[in-house]
Amino acid sequence: MKISSLQNARYAYQPKLPGMLCNGIADICVKEGSETQSVADQEKIQALFPNTYGKKEITFQKGENTSEAKKQVVGVILSGGQAPGGHNVVCGLYDALKATDKENVLYGFKGGPSGLIEDDYVIFDDEFINQFRNTGGFDIIGSGRTKLETQEQFAIVAEVCKKHGITALVIIGGDDSNTNAAVLAEYFAANNAGVQVIGCPKTIDGDLKNEDIECSFGFDTATKTYSEIIGNIERDATSAKKYWHFVKVMGRSASHVALECALQTQPNVCLISEEVAEKKMSLAQITDIIADSVAARAAKGLNFGVAIIPEGVVEFVPEFSVLIHEINELLAGSRADEFNALPSWDAKYDFIKNGLTAESMEVFAILPQAIQQQLFLERDPHGNVQVSLIESEKLFSAMVKENLAARKANGTYNGKFNALHHFLGYEGRCAFPSNFDSDYCYSLGYNAFMLIQYGYTGYLSKISNLSEPAESWIAGGMPITKMMNMERRHGEDKPVIKKALVELDGAPFKYFAERRAEWSENTCFVYPGAIQYYGPSEVCDATTITLALEQGK
Amino acid sequence: MKISSLQNARYAYQPKLPGMLCNGIADICVKEGSETQSVADQEKIQALFPNTYGKKEITFQKGENTSEAKKQVVGVILSGGQAPGGHNVVCGLYDALKATDKENVLYGFKGGPSGLIEDDYVIFDDEFINQFRNTGGFDIIGSGRTKLETQEQFAIVAEVCKKHGITALVIIGGDDSNTNAAVLAEYFAANNAGVQVIGCPKTIDGDLKNEDIECSFGFDTATKTYSEIIGNIERDATSAKKYWHFVKVMGRSASHVALECALQTQPNVCLISEEVAEKKMSLAQITDIIADSVAARAAKGLNFGVAIIPEGVVEFVPEFSVLIHEINELLAGSRADEFNALPSWDAKYDFIKNGLTAESMEVFAILPQAIQQQLFLERDPHGNVQVSLIESEKLFSAMVKENLAARKANGTYNGKFNALHHFLGYEGRCAFPSNFDSDYCYSLGYNAFMLIQYGYTGYLSKISNLSEPAESWIAGGMPITKMMNMERRHGEDKPVIKKALVELDGAPFKYFAERRAEWSENTCFVYPGAIQYYGPSEVCDATTITLALEQGK
Repeated sequence: MKISSLQNARYAYQPKLPGMLCNGIADICVKEGSETQSVADQEKIQALFPNTYGKKEITFQKGENTSEAKKQVVGVILSGGQAPGGHNVVCGLYDALKATDKENVLYGFKGGPSGLIEDDYVIFDDEFINQFRNTGGFDIIGSGRTKLETQEQFAIVAEVCKKHGITALVIIGGDDSNTNAAVLAEYFAANNAGVQVIGCPKTIDGDLKNEDIECSFGFDTATKTYSEIIGNIERDATSAKKYWHFVKVMGRSASHVALECALQTQPNVCLISEEVAEKKMSLAQITDIIADSVAARAAKGLNFGVAIIPEGVVEFVPEFSVLIHEINELLAGSRADEFNALPSWDAKYDFIKNGLTAESMEVFAILPQAIQQQLFLERDPHGNVQVSLIESEKLFSAMVKENLAARKANGTYNGKFNALHHFLGYEGRCAFPSNFDSDYCYSLGYNAFMLIQYGYTGYLSKISNLSEPAESWIAGGMPITKMMNMERRHGEDKPVIKKALVELDGAPFKYFAERRAEWSENTCFVYPGAIQYYGPSEVCDATTITLALEQGK
Repeated sequence: MKISSLQNARYAYQPKLPGMLCNGIADICVKEGSETQSVADQEKIQALFPNTYGKKEITFQKGENTSEAKKQVVGVILSGGQAPGGHNVVCGLYDALKATDKENVLYGFKGGPSGLIEDDYVIFDDEFINQFRNTGGFDIIGSGRTKLETQEQFAIVAEVCKKHGITALVIIGGDDSNTNAAVLAEYFAANNAGVQVIGCPKTIDGDLKNEDIECSFGFDTATKTYSEIIGNIERDATSAKKYWHFVKVMGRSASHVALECALQTQPNVCLISEEVAEKKMSLAQITDIIADSVAARAAKGLNFGVAIIPEGVVEFVPEFSVLIHEINELLAGSRADEFNALPSWDAKYDFIKNGLTAESMEVFAILPQAIQQQLFLERDPHGNVQVSLIESEKLFSAMVKENLAARKANGTYNGKFNALHHFLGYEGRCAFPSNFDSDYCYSLGYNAFMLIQYGYTGYLSKISNLSEPAESWIAGGMPITKMMNMERRHGEDKPVIKKALVELDGAPFKYFAERRAEWSENTCFVYPGAIQYYGPSEVCDATTITLALEQGK
């Protein structure tokens, strides 16, 4: 099998471990901290997790390993969307497990949680795992989106574990997967199944983050990859001087990715969904913000620019959410057939006009026709509008174009506006992990095994102090229940890990907000270039700007 | 002004020069070779270039510099689309010019050839030029697409040169720009204007290439950037195991970019426009090739894949070209208004059906409706179909979907097919140049000045032996007329540099053709990762696979 020269070179990279984990297995001892409370709804969470709630925070330190000697058989799964570094979590887990005892066994369940249900697995050995060190992707065992949340599933998982003698599971996933890991841990504890569960924080979206988890893995590499591309596009824009590039970046519910890319590349405009929601901004207001930048730059002779649009932004526009809700109601049941039978778009438009409230019709009327039609023609199996399919980058560029035409008519704008569109998502989820993600992920996996070895369950593998060199990182574990609160999901109150949105009073957003007026009118582009794995430390070892600002760097 | 840490680090990179140019200006002498002939149409070309035709090929070598000491005032322009390394051509030119005599002056004309006409320029100095060393983009002076080809323009250029005392121009551009450079050189020679003209071979498309020019600059970096992204997408595909990615890559008239990306990433399918033309393939045949791969993989349980589509491929499908021609005829003059006035798409469809030949209607009928409408609704100011706007990646994925539905109906396919689409172009034109392009471009510029210093005009700066280390590169110059033939352009016979298409009997295509059946059914993906500027030589210094294969490596 042919592999690239970079992949071959990366096999030789030895990921860095936190100082307290790098003296060898025999020299890792545990230090227990205080008991924990969930961040909110303590009584309810405690009631739901009677066996795993309130456990102590723990850290590892250098000292005699006092864990019980027993053969460990561990299972691991990758859950949800790909994030760079997933392979290194598995490698770190494997290396710690084998360093502890060569007889220990690591099972990898294939295709995500469903592999655990279907008992579809691989048993890792050196030859197999060595092909995946410091590489991107989740192809080592695949991933999947099946949710482990029902009692029936838990019973099957318990069966599968019993069959193989598995005494611990490591679940590598996002907020939902780790919530489910906590529920599974509680199930095993309540049923004395003898299976521990440890989670690892994964997601390129960066929204699994809290006072314990400084960042989720993959965010670093994915945002650097997108920023490489955005920087290249910026440099193209300022060379050709004739296009406005609208760049949509992944991130449905939080805008961490968009914000980090903006901090790295300093585009003319970057929308932040959380701000749109907080300020209850309308589509017209957002359009005005972009058009203001286009017009101000045109006045200086700069008929080019770059705008970053977070994937999910339209869902945060209150008037747009109302419109979507009304459309879903309007087409409920048999009315969809009635609508579909109408012979022309004009007839359909009349139907829509009669069906929507005046306010929503006003919003609908300003949308470009392609988006109007998309809202009505592409619906999911339940008949609902597929908001995720809305090409928001094209929506805003079309609305900006109209806005500029109006400005031209009233004499306040006299430039040229040609838009190009990009969507960055799949381009960054499986990149070779940056040195940061390589080290962080390997540490998370190594650390996860130490938590298993010391008998913990319902914990998230926790590595902190991440803006310092790896030597100074702190390894330990935190009960997942500590990060939970109760939220309404699908009409039910559920215990969940609180999703981290961009905080408008947080350092990263404030840094951006203080500079964006300047970036909007002028050309302050920064070109980060491709991720470097070798070379000067300031190039290879920088964390994200988000993390640096959050930690006061 | 904030710059990225990579940009800062790249300032310190010293581009490598060919061995014979790296002993200092005083130690570069010239060796003249034989007189040259154009590759075809010798008599016609000679008649058109009486003053510059038939000149000798030259190479530089180590030895006493015997060039005449005179103050050099040189002008440089960037012409056409951006290509990584353009800044280094300017830097190499500047460094050689200043190393020869500190009093020499370099003018940069802004915004491409139009800057020369409008006398819009900057005079380079160390402080200014140092900001651009080893960076991507053409923003140092901008670029443009104005063509220098009329006698009136030449007269203005001569005026501008005279005004500033400019005695040589360096034109950095593609085949058309260098053709025009030769015509301008002849004009100056015929008019004793005392201005030399030297060209430098630029284009990411890779189609300015012949027995003298081994490759154009920018192709290396651009294809490595696209291959990074395609590799990431491949790794995502093989991790998620649920999408077929259709990746369109830049390249209107030649498929060198698509082919190089395929050699680097080994996708399941890669179309090559030149093969489509040579074999007179139909849309249905092309669709079948892709659908065969989808079906063969589905039979193995692999419902994912990656297909690379060159941007201009549909223009090479004979039946499609005929269809476009008929549509242009059908809507000529007032018939467009008649067509536009029809009330519905159904009415328009009838109009089309009545207007096209049966053969073209058959082709039209199999197109997805969105593409059908695009062909009729989006036309250029002359009323012609805008072929470049056709989203060929979506065209083929839609046709493959229909093809698979038919296979499913007849029982020969039982998989799942979900397609995602990407277009890679602007993402790679302004990346930081690879070490190869940094060195090659710097050498081209340095060498261009040596050609000027030794009094040559109508030459292309030529660096060869490029698959060897820079130390062994050969520097020299070749009369542009040597690369010319006569071609029919816009109804006239014109002398032009022959465009290099992918040769179906060339080593790169043959390498691909021998392996593609294997790649089509199996997962042979290679993940090149991001361009590395530091680190192991086999990672940082590799040339393109195209160049390596062409030179028998």
